[in-house]
Amino acid sequence: MSHLSRFNDTDQQYMYQAIELAKLGSMTTTPNPNVGCLIVKDHHIVGQGYHIKAGQPHAEVYALRQAGNQARGATAYVTLEPCSHYGRTPPCANALIDAGITRVVVAMQDPNPHVCGQGIARLRQSGIRVDVGLCGQEAETLNRAFLKRMRTGMPYIQLKLAASLDGKIAMASGESKWITSTTARQDVQQFRAQASAILSTRATVQADNASLTVRHAELPTAIQQRYLVDDVRQPIRVIIDSQNKLTGQEPLFEQAGEIWVVRKQALAVNHRDCQIIVDSSTSAHIDLRWLLQQLAEKQINSVWIEAGSHLAGALIEQDLVDEFIIYYAPKLLGHNAIDMCVLPNLQKLALAPTLTFQSVQMIGPDLRCILHK
Amino acid sequence: MSHLSRFNDTDQQYMYQAIELAKLGSMTTTPNPNVGCLIVKDHHIVGQGYHIKAGQPHAEVYALRQAGNQARGATAYVTLEPCSHYGRTPPCANALIDAGITRVVVAMQDPNPHVCGQGIARLRQSGIRVDVGLCGQEAETLNRAFLKRMRTGMPYIQLKLAASLDGKIAMASGESKWITSTTARQDVQQFRAQASAILSTRATVQADNASLTVRHAELPTAIQQRYLVDDVRQPIRVIIDSQNKLTGQEPLFEQAGEIWVVRKQALAVNHRDCQIIVDSSTSAHIDLRWLLQQLAEKQINSVWIEAGSHLAGALIEQDLVDEFIIYYAPKLLGHNAIDMCVLPNLQKLALAPTLTFQSVQMIGPDLRCILHK
Repeated sequence: MSHLSRFNDTDQQYMYQAIELAKLGSMTTTPNPNVGCLIVKDHHIVGQGYHIKAGQPHAEVYALRQAGNQARGATAYVTLEPCSHYGRTPPCANALIDAGITRVVVAMQDPNPHVCGQGIARLRQSGIRVDVGLCGQEAETLNRAFLKRMRTGMPYIQLKLAASLDGKIAMASGESKWITSTTARQDVQQFRAQASAILSTRATVQADNASLTVRHAELPTAIQQRYLVDDVRQPIRVIIDSQNKLTGQEPLFEQAGEIWVVRKQALAVNHRDCQIIVDSSTSAHIDLRWLLQQLAEKQINSVWIEAGSHLAGALIEQDLVDEFIIYYAPKLLGHNAIDMCVLPNLQKLALAPTLTFQSVQMIGPDLRCILHK
Repeated sequence: MSHLSRFNDTDQQYMYQAIELAKLGSMTTTPNPNVGCLIVKDHHIVGQGYHIKAGQPHAEVYALRQAGNQARGATAYVTLEPCSHYGRTPPCANALIDAGITRVVVAMQDPNPHVCGQGIARLRQSGIRVDVGLCGQEAETLNRAFLKRMRTGMPYIQLKLAASLDGKIAMASGESKWITSTTARQDVQQFRAQASAILSTRATVQADNASLTVRHAELPTAIQQRYLVDDVRQPIRVIIDSQNKLTGQEPLFEQAGEIWVVRKQALAVNHRDCQIIVDSSTSAHIDLRWLLQQLAEKQINSVWIEAGSHLAGALIEQDLVDEFIIYYAPKLLGHNAIDMCVLPNLQKLALAPTLTFQSVQMIGPDLRCILHK
């Protein structure tokens, strides 16, 4: 691509570092995107920062603070277009201009309608050289959930499945504790911690006595060391309860954190952290596409789904899943055990939903496969 | 281990080379083991050989022929104890002695009751220094099938399964062509080509119109280049037909190669390449353990099994499988599709057969997992 000539190898190294910095916020920034910023002057990094949490300063502000007077005449590497609007914090474009930055390298434009090229335009108007598109693919991956919501009005959907080699998620009796290993379940904790919301059903929650929280003590050690117990953000728990069976007394409600219960009727659950989302469509089932749109409107970037065969199947049939995370335990449960997904309408092999393996990794004794549609 | 001090790094490099040589025979030597031999004099390889085919010279003979007079005073590296008995060829121990070899490095003793230390003893008696146990683990893996048969009187059992992500091997209609990719099916050809026998059932053979042969044109390219079409050995095809339904007219019988049909009664199939194995036990089903023992007695080292859910399940329940080779296509077939294995007696998760992942590899768009019990 012709624009690549504007970048050299050093530029690329700095941008990779900015992306690594951005990832440090991956468990805390929602609904905001992950952004990293590096300020470089005379081949030295004089400032670095990343966005930690909505309402707190943006990456550029932290990096500029650290750089101080050295920002004058320096280059800023930013993983996402600097914002141009007054949100909870003043625009970063202004901060870069005021600090005397003379070149800004941006990985990608921000599709957020409040920004969408205006940040770049503002910088250029003030005479700053702005080069856009370095490590654009990595920047896309970094914020794939935020970007999907901005572009489509839908959250990024991750469906987690934990199965035996023969694709079974529980014994016929319902027994499923535990098919996968402790290590795999710690790995799940890490994904939960990065999600904006966790979606499950009343049936699954009751069958598993699940609380669906992020538990600091169960996170991988490296992450435990990075976050204090109190810094762990609890994703919003969204529970489909179309038959109004949740009482507010379930273990789920004993754990701190917001819970949104999805019902067909405006019947409240008696619990302080619980809101009701009402699907007033005529179908007996919750309209899943509508629900996910509702979640996006409530600024949910990503939804991590832990569910049984029916919800999994319904999501698959409606082509709503962006990413499958399947943990395979090296066990065989046999034909009587419970299937991974119920797909009642699938008759022909040629019509089977087909995915692509993205990554395959051993997690303790289990195998974790990540697939995209 | 104390005996390791007898070996140096150079010894190890030569033995690794001998093992690589031995592997070149992996599609042809059955019922014999794979053996490689390197003759080294003054830090130069003066001879190398591997066993190609039963009835043809052993690895040592090829290597000694190549070395000629330079074998005098040289060291021989052999991946399996040289034989001491007159079989279809004269004993290799004698050949090494006669050639004036002064040191023999042996990866492992041969458990074959005709050899079993006597080859090593013969060499030592003639004044040759013999060092045993270098790369013993690699040598074990190389001949795991032959060694299992020698030690236990049972063949090495590989169960192949081709499934969707949710562990389904066919649609409810029986449709299964093709769940996995062409690349995966080529990979299967390679495994077939290495097996002493292929085991399947009448039902599977008829449902798939399967011939269960090795097809030169479908082997991976590197292997096609190594073998001429006529050099491809056809594994013996063993078909369970407890209801005497095979007629001899099925596509299976159109392809050259021996077929052993397993029945409860001594009813012949009218075909020149077909023998009957009669299981006269009182059960309506074929006694699988007995059958596999029979195959071992007929010098079958390894059995590659391609079968449906019932045979797979029965083998698993009787703990007869040594190695699972599971190809996962990145598809979902849903709950109505046919399960990987029927395990009617499994009720509790704690009693589920548990394996260990040995290797995980992408084969085209599919994932191949190899697991051991």
